[in-house]
Amino acid sequence: MLADVQSSCDSIPTNSRCSRLHAYRHLPCARNSGGSGSFVSANGLTLTNHHVGLDTLQKISSQEHNYVRDGFYAKTQAGEVKATDLELNVLMSTEDVTARVNGAVKAGLSPDAASAARASAIAQIEKESKEKTGLRSDVVTLYQGGVYHLYRYKRYDDVRLVFAPEQQMAFYGGDPDNFEYPRFDLDICFFRVYENGQPAKIENFLKWNSRGPGDGELTFVSGSPGKTDRQLTVDELADKRDREVPNWLGIFNRREVMLNAWSQRSFENARRARDDLFGDQNNRKRYDGYVAALFDPEIWMSIQAREQKLRAAIARDPKLRPTSAAYDHIKKAQTEIVRIAPRYDYIEQERPITVGYRGPRAFYGTLFKYGRLLIRAIDERAKPNGNRIAEFRDSARESLELDLFSTSPVYDDYEILRLTDSLTDFAEKFGANDPLVKQVLAGKSPHARAVELVSGTKLKDVAFRKDLYTKNAKALSAAHDPMLDLARFVDEPARNARKIHDAQEEIKKQAYGEIARRRFAAEGTSNYPDATFTLRLSYGTVRGYEEDGKQISSFTNFEGLYQRAAEHENKPPFDLPQRWIDKKSNLNLSTKFNFVSDADIIGGNSGSPVVNKAGEFVGIIFDGNIQSLVLDCIFSDKQARAVSVDSAAITETLRNVYDAQPLVDELTAPK
Amino acid sequence: MLADVQSSCDSIPTNSRCSRLHAYRHLPCARNSGGSGSFVSANGLTLTNHHVGLDTLQKISSQEHNYVRDGFYAKTQAGEVKATDLELNVLMSTEDVTARVNGAVKAGLSPDAASAARASAIAQIEKESKEKTGLRSDVVTLYQGGVYHLYRYKRYDDVRLVFAPEQQMAFYGGDPDNFEYPRFDLDICFFRVYENGQPAKIENFLKWNSRGPGDGELTFVSGSPGKTDRQLTVDELADKRDREVPNWLGIFNRREVMLNAWSQRSFENARRARDDLFGDQNNRKRYDGYVAALFDPEIWMSIQAREQKLRAAIARDPKLRPTSAAYDHIKKAQTEIVRIAPRYDYIEQERPITVGYRGPRAFYGTLFKYGRLLIRAIDERAKPNGNRIAEFRDSARESLELDLFSTSPVYDDYEILRLTDSLTDFAEKFGANDPLVKQVLAGKSPHARAVELVSGTKLKDVAFRKDLYTKNAKALSAAHDPMLDLARFVDEPARNARKIHDAQEEIKKQAYGEIARRRFAAEGTSNYPDATFTLRLSYGTVRGYEEDGKQISSFTNFEGLYQRAAEHENKPPFDLPQRWIDKKSNLNLSTKFNFVSDADIIGGNSGSPVVNKAGEFVGIIFDGNIQSLVLDCIFSDKQARAVSVDSAAITETLRNVYDAQPLVDELTAPK
Repeated sequence: MLADVQSSCDSIPTNSRCSRLHAYRHLPCARNSGGSGSFVSANGLTLTNHHVGLDTLQKISSQEHNYVRDGFYAKTQAGEVKATDLELNVLMSTEDVTARVNGAVKAGLSPDAASAARASAIAQIEKESKEKTGLRSDVVTLYQGGVYHLYRYKRYDDVRLVFAPEQQMAFYGGDPDNFEYPRFDLDICFFRVYENGQPAKIENFLKWNSRGPGDGELTFVSGSPGKTDRQLTVDELADKRDREVPNWLGIFNRREVMLNAWSQRSFENARRARDDLFGDQNNRKRYDGYVAALFDPEIWMSIQAREQKLRAAIARDPKLRPTSAAYDHIKKAQTEIVRIAPRYDYIEQERPITVGYRGPRAFYGTLFKYGRLLIRAIDERAKPNGNRIAEFRDSARESLELDLFSTSPVYDDYEILRLTDSLTDFAEKFGANDPLVKQVLAGKSPHARAVELVSGTKLKDVAFRKDLYTKNAKALSAAHDPMLDLARFVDEPARNARKIHDAQEEIKKQAYGEIARRRFAAEGTSNYPDATFTLRLSYGTVRGYEEDGKQISSFTNFEGLYQRAAEHENKPPFDLPQRWIDKKSNLNLSTKFNFVSDADIIGGNSGSPVVNKAGEFVGIIFDGNIQSLVLDCIFSDKQARAVSVDSAAITETLRNVYDAQPLVDELTAPK
Repeated sequence: MLADVQSSCDSIPTNSRCSRLHAYRHLPCARNSGGSGSFVSANGLTLTNHHVGLDTLQKISSQEHNYVRDGFYAKTQAGEVKATDLELNVLMSTEDVTARVNGAVKAGLSPDAASAARASAIAQIEKESKEKTGLRSDVVTLYQGGVYHLYRYKRYDDVRLVFAPEQQMAFYGGDPDNFEYPRFDLDICFFRVYENGQPAKIENFLKWNSRGPGDGELTFVSGSPGKTDRQLTVDELADKRDREVPNWLGIFNRREVMLNAWSQRSFENARRARDDLFGDQNNRKRYDGYVAALFDPEIWMSIQAREQKLRAAIARDPKLRPTSAAYDHIKKAQTEIVRIAPRYDYIEQERPITVGYRGPRAFYGTLFKYGRLLIRAIDERAKPNGNRIAEFRDSARESLELDLFSTSPVYDDYEILRLTDSLTDFAEKFGANDPLVKQVLAGKSPHARAVELVSGTKLKDVAFRKDLYTKNAKALSAAHDPMLDLARFVDEPARNARKIHDAQEEIKKQAYGEIARRRFAAEGTSNYPDATFTLRLSYGTVRGYEEDGKQISSFTNFEGLYQRAAEHENKPPFDLPQRWIDKKSNLNLSTKFNFVSDADIIGGNSGSPVVNKAGEFVGIIFDGNIQSLVLDCIFSDKQARAVSVDSAAITETLRNVYDAQPLVDELTAPK
């Protein structure tokens, strides 16, 4: 799966803590939890991946209505189910604001002051734009600070579920088949956006093509890829390879094991943990693939060559001495970032930031998140907009409130499980005698402390959160809520860690900006900027590849699906839903199911529409093969492939498996 | 499960790399892979846990004959299947050799020289004993060096499988129920020992009691518990808590995730990886529980109080100043051990040593193991016996050859999987630019290098190993075998790491010996020594306990088993084998199945017989509850419980589920 990516939180008010969809008005693209999507009807119908919608499916499900397991289809609009905290943002315009942002950072400022000046300028630009246009306005850093663009989004926060297949079918083959090919996944999910209680009228939506693309056909992809590392220095990539990514893999492994063990104890446990487990497994596989690419000498030499070429050009020109120095500045700043990383990760913000913000690593769970958001929302509110942390600026207020006032269920046992584990992790990392660990545990074992915090807090109650949100710091303190007290207590050390971290990031930003300017001089914009969760158009040819001497063909079909299930005796994760067994004879088994193309995609492209030359929807990207994970750091079309669901398969199954003819009619209605 | 424990390898020639069973001639106890067992008939019939026999079940299974999944019963002796490399050792006598061992370590020797002198004295004692008695002779370190005993074992290496249930039944409830109670596991496995091709005649075996113990009954337990940490200093336990055990958990998590993901891809993958996955999950759960105990302030204060009491007594006596200093020596040595630990673990010997030696952490798999054993066997052979590494002394030769010439199948894909992961782990730990990493990877990616090594080596072939074993270092080198070349190449740095490690362990040993002498003076032998994989007798009362305010009763029965399966819709790991569904009406459902007692047990006690006052077999220990994991570092009978299979359940199921009346007849034959 291509969602669940890290987002660079430092300068972009991505607010990735809250699920949202982005769409561009012309070539619609969407994002949710780091995913993409598209409008596919005039009545606000939006198509994205099941795994992008999963966070919402999980939140609107209960023990009685398990939409994740059983799927969902609203035959009428009245039956569509409102998401608890999903927002959809449609990109309306972009504007270059580089000069204004950089102009605010006067030469000779200390890193701290430069960072503050830059943040203040960005906040001011966003605020002015919001006030002028009413649109959500985000300043986005491109080329590691080489360019700043203002993105304006139309925002929808009434988003309703229309259709989802069984997760079993959306994620057929489960973790073993994730990032693999050939595949047989119906990884789709339809939502509808509403305005004033009515389906939104959408002018620019994609025309549906029920046949899908042909082999060798050129296709276009729009989406919001999350983050790539292609402009990073060799030093920084080496640090990622040898330290950072292995460190992330450690936490993904730890959580996968914990959630898996707990899930096995009962069906209800499994249901509660499903989305998180899914995310951890996806991240683990993704970063396993990334690290494998970085340890591949052939790839590494290409990365070194790319940098060498640029550095050689810089070295030839004596005027470019400051640019040469930029590489050293990045290296030095990175050393400081590595030093502060444990404290930053454990008490301020776990990285990589993954789908569904889970708080700092030491306090995994929903309740601490609410505690911190409340504490900080109130503290930050008292400051001028430009001085605030990005996620508490006026431009992000609506998203913050959507997140804080979410009605998603909170389960005590699940909160205790995760908090116990993360407090243990914290104590293991710093040792039981670390003063902060001692204060956090308050003389109790991690488990006893987690029980005390979860049982004692009232933050489960939306009304309680809403009430406190309207009040002040004194009221928070007077609530004597143990989770709020913990969030308050760790806030100062957490902010201190963030301050050190952000100052070094600012140094890096300036240095990368310097390098980016030289790269422009040498290459122009012939290389596109690193991905930043914002709109990117790409293209690719539908074509197979060779693996271990074997030719992998471009398409799979329904026949292959039934074969695969038979080979695995229909056992999980290769089992078919009963509906698919019953309806087999209804299906044209030679219908194309999934296909691969050589489009340049990355995590965040999940849900990206694949469009043919006529501008018609022919498929939806949901994954890359394992060889595509190299795309994080360098482009290659040798084996790297994007994996899509064919529009022919969607049409066929909606009609003949899910009895959703009205949905097909809406998709295929004349424009 | 109580097997799969770490073994302290430094001074004890435990040779835990090779599976073996230990039994004591009077109160028989057995061990395999760190487990125990007992003789239960005059014809060599031995009972242990299924999970203790699992390593052998795995090795004698194939895609066609899957004894792990399907179970096994030899209706006749001719049908009993010979283990590939299982040995069974019966303890015949013990002798105090403390004076002779310590006498060899002259005052003023350097740690290196002291370690060598001690090793040489031990080797000499073992060799003399072996020559005199023909028995396997091991010198065992007790009380961390306070006492040395010579243990003599009669050794059986023709061990055949008689009966095993389906693993599904032996490990009913799987990982979620492991270390939990109430339980419903038939964790048993019968082997028979042979001499000269005939069933061995056993004089001292346990009389079978088909009724099992009563509630509140006093019972006795014999077994070979693996390792406890009860004599460790507070400093060393704190290091275990904050560094060592979390580090182990990291590798268990990593491997569990890897093996689980691979297992899910096909039934055959799952079969190949089953035993290893099982071991990793068991270790993970065990050390999770241990770390939770160490982070419990109540337990930690008891540990501190225990040490404080002894140190106060020492401080009161000015003559005991050297003993006070011993604590500092341990701390200082431990610092050095921590410093060398990464190199030691990755290239010399992964700790904790778990069931089925898997080589150093960087080279996980069977083939590297063979490479190293060959290289070292030949190098060490050239030295005087007393100067050799413990596992290559004459006294261990038979076990070494059993291991090296094992006919267990080796699967290329499984070897490549594990070697790729462990080479990646190695590169992550030391960085891609580490000189040793570079030399090991030889300019290739971890995967490419693993493929090259596994595909290129001939070490899969037993005849090749046997042939080289008879030759010399020159012949090994002339073989130009890539895996042998790798093993040769890392041998020097590995031995260097071991030398540093062992010298510090020697310092600790002397210091712990000093402390142990003072403890004797204060407490006598009222506290038993830490477990060392050797015989220990324990006792316990059959009784339940309270958990979260709820009373957990002592016994479960077959009715509870069927209920549990129904609650989980008979889905894995709570599914019943078809045989158990078909035979339900044959069974007396009120038959007691599992029970708990407050015996002091620890990893390695797996398979320990539970014996009543009349000396009759009434049950077999297979696990402890999660609260029992505290027993590693301190005794408690509040909630800690050993979990056993009731002899009544064994009798009932052999008769009415497995149609094994002849086996019941043998068990219940008059003595």
